[in-house]
Amino acid sequence: MRIKMVIAYDGTNYYGYQHQPGKVTIQDTFEEKLAIICKKHITTYASGRTDGHVHAKGQVLHFDTDIEMKENNWMRALNSLLPEDIKVVSVEKVDDEFHARFSAVKKEYRYYIKLGEYDIFKNNYTAYYEKLDVSKMKEAIKYFLGTHDFKSYSRFVDKKPTIRTIYTAQINELEDNILEIKFIGNGFLKYMVRIMVGTLIDVGLGRKEVDDVLKILELKDRTKASKTASPNGLFLYKVYYGKE
Amino acid sequence: MRIKMVIAYDGTNYYGYQHQPGKVTIQDTFEEKLAIICKKHITTYASGRTDGHVHAKGQVLHFDTDIEMKENNWMRALNSLLPEDIKVVSVEKVDDEFHARFSAVKKEYRYYIKLGEYDIFKNNYTAYYEKLDVSKMKEAIKYFLGTHDFKSYSRFVDKKPTIRTIYTAQINELEDNILEIKFIGNGFLKYMVRIMVGTLIDVGLGRKEVDDVLKILELKDRTKASKTASPNGLFLYKVYYGKE
Repeated sequence: MRIKMVIAYDGTNYYGYQHQPGKVTIQDTFEEKLAIICKKHITTYASGRTDGHVHAKGQVLHFDTDIEMKENNWMRALNSLLPEDIKVVSVEKVDDEFHARFSAVKKEYRYYIKLGEYDIFKNNYTAYYEKLDVSKMKEAIKYFLGTHDFKSYSRFVDKKPTIRTIYTAQINELEDNILEIKFIGNGFLKYMVRIMVGTLIDVGLGRKEVDDVLKILELKDRTKASKTASPNGLFLYKVYYGKE
Repeated sequence: MRIKMVIAYDGTNYYGYQHQPGKVTIQDTFEEKLAIICKKHITTYASGRTDGHVHAKGQVLHFDTDIEMKENNWMRALNSLLPEDIKVVSVEKVDDEFHARFSAVKKEYRYYIKLGEYDIFKNNYTAYYEKLDVSKMKEAIKYFLGTHDFKSYSRFVDKKPTIRTIYTAQINELEDNILEIKFIGNGFLKYMVRIMVGTLIDVGLGRKEVDDVLKILELKDRTKASKTASPNGLFLYKVYYGKE
């Protein structure tokens, strides 16, 4: 039987999602607890990896098991074993065609920036800039919308295709001087959200012009974009399957 | 010259405020950075210690130095050296009579509890209970107001006096299902806020009656009060000097 789970985690104390020998990762921590319930190691498949210190509100994974248990009991059993910074949000029995990674049709990431006064209690979950020109950033972010080759905005990985479609790219000003940058797309390349955000930050700081964002996109050259924004502001917010 | 500083810290990764050999504490971290500026070790004096994982929005300390520097430059120099979870909030040159601990006339602590759905991103800064009877807790907290012997609500330390006056004791319901428990008093004994909160939580859970809070106060017996609430919800919010 195949089980789909939505999990949330505070990535602050982890070396990213994916298994790494000798490092504490989300996947290793999760599978270690799952093994206690299943009495053997079971490999899980996630919608994708997240980098060190990146958080998730809605990471999705699946695994196969013979264990018969109600959805709610899976959730309770795992949450009683998992540390306080990783929690199962929902559990669903799915058919064997479902794959957390390959069935995903859209992903949503959100990036948070604290403006104004520095707040140490927001530091694990936001990047910090005293002042950014938000209206310029709102203009610039529109260039990411649509289907483009995002080579400039990703870490080059061999010959993998770099064309992606972004359906939503918007900036919201929340309470407490917090900026929320939201991206929904059919997929995101390695570091892509953080490099896009890093470049938008440079627009907000006046180090780049609004239409540099477009020019960089067209140049297909990673060295033209800004540096990768810090991981702590980034949240894998939701993974979409089918018509949602 | 005597310098007064207000500092804020996220206590999550520290073994409390006070110096402890072989442990990472706020005081040690702060004095280590101060030594870089002063080119020698300088002992600082705080308004009081805070326990491991307890936070501060307004801890106050003082120290003496010959170094001539503007208040703003002290702040900038230290903040550039301090880690992201400890920051200087304000700096003031004071006369030699000022003492961060002995000149303090009132202290304010706030304790935060997350109700409803568990939120991993609030876990470092709140205790969590799904449901508490807040109206009963609001009744019960009133018993703490005024001058009492708080022996039941503190960890017994030798023969030290246990009489304290509480001027403000109130519970506010904030956004996102967060409960704020606020105490202002002329001083607080070891674990006092957390034992008072632990007992209020038991009232909220129905494990204790509202007037048990008064009965426990009168019994002067630590074993009658509830267990010490977890440190992560506690903030040293402000230290008052003179007529504030």
